[in-house]
Amino acid sequence: MELDLQRYSVRTDLAVDAREMAGHAGPIPGVDEEITEKDGIKITRLNVLNEAGSQAIGRVKGHYITLEVPGLRNGDTKLQEQVAEAFAREFEDFLALIGIQKKQTVLIVGLGNWNVTPDSLGPLVVENVLVTRQYFQLMPDQVAPGYREISAIAPGVLGLTGIESSEIVQGIVERTKPDLIIAIDALASKSLERVNTTIQIADIGIHPGSGIGNKRRGLTKEVLGVPVVAIGVPTVCYASTIVNNVMEMMKNHFGQETNQTRQIMGMLDDINEQERLALVKEVLEPLGHDLIVTPKEIDEFIEDIANIVASGLNAALHDAVDPGNTGAYTH
Amino acid sequence: MELDLQRYSVRTDLAVDAREMAGHAGPIPGVDEEITEKDGIKITRLNVLNEAGSQAIGRVKGHYITLEVPGLRNGDTKLQEQVAEAFAREFEDFLALIGIQKKQTVLIVGLGNWNVTPDSLGPLVVENVLVTRQYFQLMPDQVAPGYREISAIAPGVLGLTGIESSEIVQGIVERTKPDLIIAIDALASKSLERVNTTIQIADIGIHPGSGIGNKRRGLTKEVLGVPVVAIGVPTVCYASTIVNNVMEMMKNHFGQETNQTRQIMGMLDDINEQERLALVKEVLEPLGHDLIVTPKEIDEFIEDIANIVASGLNAALHDAVDPGNTGAYTH
Amino acid sequence: MELDLQRYSVRTDLAVDAREMAGHAGPIPGVDEEITEKDGIKITRLNVLNEAGSQAIGRVKGHYITLEVPGLRNGDTKLQEQVAEAFAREFEDFLALIGIQKKQTVLIVGLGNWNVTPDSLGPLVVENVLVTRQYFQLMPDQVAPGYREISAIAPGVLGLTGIESSEIVQGIVERTKPDLIIAIDALASKSLERVNTTIQIADIGIHPGSGIGNKRRGLTKEVLGVPVVAIGVPTVCYASTIVNNVMEMMKNHFGQETNQTRQIMGMLDDINEQERLALVKEVLEPLGHDLIVTPKEIDEFIEDIANIVASGLNAALHDAVDPGNTGAYTH
Amino acid sequence: MELDLQRYSVRTDLAVDAREMAGHAGPIPGVDEEITEKDGIKITRLNVLNEAGSQAIGRVKGHYITLEVPGLRNGDTKLQEQVAEAFAREFEDFLALIGIQKKQTVLIVGLGNWNVTPDSLGPLVVENVLVTRQYFQLMPDQVAPGYREISAIAPGVLGLTGIESSEIVQGIVERTKPDLIIAIDALASKSLERVNTTIQIADIGIHPGSGIGNKRRGLTKEVLGVPVVAIGVPTVCYASTIVNNVMEMMKNHFGQETNQTRQIMGMLDDINEQERLALVKEVLEPLGHDLIVTPKEIDEFIEDIANIVASGLNAALHDAVDPGNTGAYTH
Repeated sequence: MELDLQRYSVRTDLAVDAREMAGHAGPIPGVDEEITEKDGIKITRLNVLNEAGSQAIGRVKGHYITLEVPGLRNGDTKLQEQVAEAFAREFEDFLALIGIQKKQTVLIVGLGNWNVTPDSLGPLVVENVLVTRQYFQLMPDQVAPGYREISAIAPGVLGLTGIESSEIVQGIVERTKPDLIIAIDALASKSLERVNTTIQIADIGIHPGSGIGNKRRGLTKEVLGVPVVAIGVPTVCYASTIVNNVMEMMKNHFGQETNQTRQIMGMLDDINEQERLALVKEVLEPLGHDLIVTPKEIDEFIEDIANIVASGLNAALHDAVDPGNTGAYTH
Repeated sequence: MELDLQRYSVRTDLAVDAREMAGHAGPIPGVDEEITEKDGIKITRLNVLNEAGSQAIGRVKGHYITLEVPGLRNGDTKLQEQVAEAFAREFEDFLALIGIQKKQTVLIVGLGNWNVTPDSLGPLVVENVLVTRQYFQLMPDQVAPGYREISAIAPGVLGLTGIESSEIVQGIVERTKPDLIIAIDALASKSLERVNTTIQIADIGIHPGSGIGNKRRGLTKEVLGVPVVAIGVPTVCYASTIVNNVMEMMKNHFGQETNQTRQIMGMLDDINEQERLALVKEVLEPLGHDLIVTPKEIDEFIEDIANIVASGLNAALHDAVDPGNTGAYTH
Repeated sequence: MELDLQRYSVRTDLAVDAREMAGHAGPIPGVDEEITEKDGIKITRLNVLNEAGSQAIGRVKGHYITLEVPGLRNGDTKLQEQVAEAFAREFEDFLALIGIQKKQTVLIVGLGNWNVTPDSLGPLVVENVLVTRQYFQLMPDQVAPGYREISAIAPGVLGLTGIESSEIVQGIVERTKPDLIIAIDALASKSLERVNTTIQIADIGIHPGSGIGNKRRGLTKEVLGVPVVAIGVPTVCYASTIVNNVMEMMKNHFGQETNQTRQIMGMLDDINEQERLALVKEVLEPLGHDLIVTPKEIDEFIEDIANIVASGLNAALHDAVDPGNTGAYTH
Repeated sequence: MELDLQRYSVRTDLAVDAREMAGHAGPIPGVDEEITEKDGIKITRLNVLNEAGSQAIGRVKGHYITLEVPGLRNGDTKLQEQVAEAFAREFEDFLALIGIQKKQTVLIVGLGNWNVTPDSLGPLVVENVLVTRQYFQLMPDQVAPGYREISAIAPGVLGLTGIESSEIVQGIVERTKPDLIIAIDALASKSLERVNTTIQIADIGIHPGSGIGNKRRGLTKEVLGVPVVAIGVPTVCYASTIVNNVMEMMKNHFGQETNQTRQIMGMLDDINEQERLALVKEVLEPLGHDLIVTPKEIDEFIEDIANIVASGLNAALHDAVDPGNTGAYTH
């Protein structure tokens, strides 16, 4: 078996990364943007309204909500609870915004590889959400009010099962007919400080990674026939991100000093991003196939964020689950 | 949520248990039986030929192979390797017997709940089998000779996913069209000494547990449209089994002594199995919902047997995997 | 390596089991007893005052508190929190009773084998208690008020380390000089309904199992030079317990019916407990070396009870930890 | 608890990193060096003979053996076995070289934090080595020939136990009197391509990390009274390493092109390593406290290398364990 297929899941990117790279300080035509910040939780609501907005920002049309919480790095239990509550509120509003009713049924899909810690977010969330479909199916009269019909699956990755996760999900959707799919996935961030501190909600589904994917691999309304809300958390970043960020710093560093260095750095500018990445890859190739790194504390980060997402989903999806006590329903 | 649904997987029984309860010393009409024993591994090949045999033995028509290895309890690495090799040989012969060709594709299904140690056998085997379908699908020209197209899934249990595992498997079968399904499951044994020492292969599929199941839950050729070979290992036993076995011992104990006790024990006989179970349940109810126990060393047993089954399957399914070196392909 | 040494930890028994076997309905000389029951939590406070009490009850002199909560089997999160709070209150009172001051330092010792689920209680508790000694040692001025100096260790078992856990603990005690040791261990119960539903606190230390142990293996004030409070939870029972309990049931069952069966059962009475156990062992020997079983749901039980004990200890040992919010400090 | 103490273990560096930074192409006075390469395994034997050698290379006096196996990144089972065998041979020779006899007893110490994947190497090795001291202590007459008396402990890290791991080890050494200590630890590498592909053996013990440590924290002959052989595997690298390596690349890249860029790069040279690190830290601070990253595939790498080290130790320490079949003794 000489073949080397990735055992890693599909990755998408953060809209706030893209919006930042678009670089406008002011409003972008075709993009509604609203930012609030409270208790260390910054919430950005982006609405890409049309093709113009989509072009400007490099993201498909749709709604994007991002919670950024730098403080999550400190392992503060109280903050984690606040984030779970904020996420629950945002998610509940998001479902209303895209027209999902209280009675509609949901399939939660936890993408990723449970054997690869930074890719195990989806499966971990699935382990911790409240699953109720069996009660609705087998004894519907006895289900207490305030609960929604939820099923959940972690389909694994191609390298573990030999089957595209989208094929597994499609089979389940055809047989169980949920009204909505919520897909949770670990992402790669372009921005170092967003790793393990950011949660994105979007109604655009999951699109396959650029290099490898093909149409079959997406989890989208087009493929599955039902709306797909994606929840993404960046848990890794490309080593090149680190290097690029440092180069930016260097430009600023030199630029502030002398005329001469400004001139030099003008030259450094001439090494465009493409060339930089080529250089970086030359250096990083020894590290392994895909140059993706994660902070060494990843085990703890993943567990904390999976709890936040699962607690938040439980509170958002079931009226009977108290947003202030979401933790009680997770392990 | 007042409902109390089992988070536990479907269970079937051992043919050798049933054959023993049938009690005939000599041959049973409609049942071919062949027993061999070598190196501490006892292999029973039962073939239930027709309705008469099925009635006599209380098992559906089909082929059953059972490996019994009491020595497995001692954690002997060398014996484990021998059992893996014997299992591989038997399984390869079994596939030939039921007409499965070398080129035919296989979906391995690991039933059970990975969070419940004695029920985690199926998922553990799935983690350790060699999965190759992705290579056959994406780069068929580059697959080395001697490998078979294998996919594998652990669908979880109803309490974890809200979806019957048979529904998940059916969806996958419809989309990926395997030629054969191999389903691995942990069983409950009627016979104490078979717990964690016995492996059964049968071509009858997986039938739902008697009390709870319904047609949808089975994994059988009728339901899935492809043959289903079931591999079962008993990992738990009902507490009532222990008590019944002890009562048998007592009857023998008394019976050998006096006339009077033989008379008394005749009366003990009058407490039929049904009554015994009622008594046992009265005592055991405090223990919890289903009175199923497992040896405290279950963690180690499950890991060892999962390795044996996975190693054996790898050697049996791929000509390129050496039966003498099966361990190299498992974790 | 032909030797077969237990990889399992020291076991002791429950005082409430012993008190029950002592069988007195009324007060026992030399034993103070107080029982309260509230919200499904039964608390028994036994004080074995002198040699007479010790003889009568078969337990060494000392204080014993037992919490029995049959409802713990149902996985009710709210009840678990109530038990954690009740345990915290009892434990705090217990420390006051035996004269431990707020400022005194504690070493928490989690006995048992983390690879054997029903024996992993001690290590799991150690993973979840708030450890603070490093702050007191390295930056004592910056420790917030309301915290106590706590260290914690899971020394493993002889089969894993080759070293008696008492030797490891002694070495640590000599170097770090704690004022009190709290030792957590999984027990075997004589009474089926107490498995996984009972927590015992006692100031008598940990005594080695009868068959194997020797003086070096105990964790007692005599050996270590500091008081040792033991927290024990029964997580397994001997198969013989199950059988004996059923036989008791049978005697009652028959006895209520006819003269004749009463006569028969008189004979059954003649099989004394010793003989019964001999019979049971004859039957159970195939199961393995020590005939100890555990409910198949043990994974979940152990996790739940470890959280209760860790939460309770955190609240009892640190004034700054709120008894109503003990869960926040465990995983 | 506002204090932020590292939950991470002591780290040392690789001698081959140091030797490389020393930069001499030819022989270094006071340092014997021998390099062999076979089957993709490069073995460097460094002997720092005296103070001059120590100064030149920045390492303390002692013997260092390093196995570098770039191919380990590919998950090749066969290569892993070859490395285990090579490691076993080298380790056996190393023990002879430093005068350890076949009959002498060993305590294996697995340093690091089992909850932090890239720091869990030591504890994982301890789980997989053959522990025999209990047999020698309890039934010395029955121990088969060819086995050595081995005990093993994973003492955890300060943040988990509140106790320095060296204090725990000292207590055990005083009570069990081993003749040799083998300490296994995960390291940080200065050289990207050595992460997860390099194993170092050295007879210099474990020295505390420079910034934090103090004398008490080392595991050395001075502290413990017995020789300490350290086995180290780099599993993480500082983000600054990646950036520095890329900057080196850039200098080469530009330098080969024009006069002008050479001039510019002369200036880049002026940013010395100190300044570079300051810049890097400015960028990387958001990532967390210590700027240490690991490849996302770390779970698999750690498991593979732990198996190699444990298999190799088993073969090297016990004559009765066959170097060609070392895997049989690990999980």
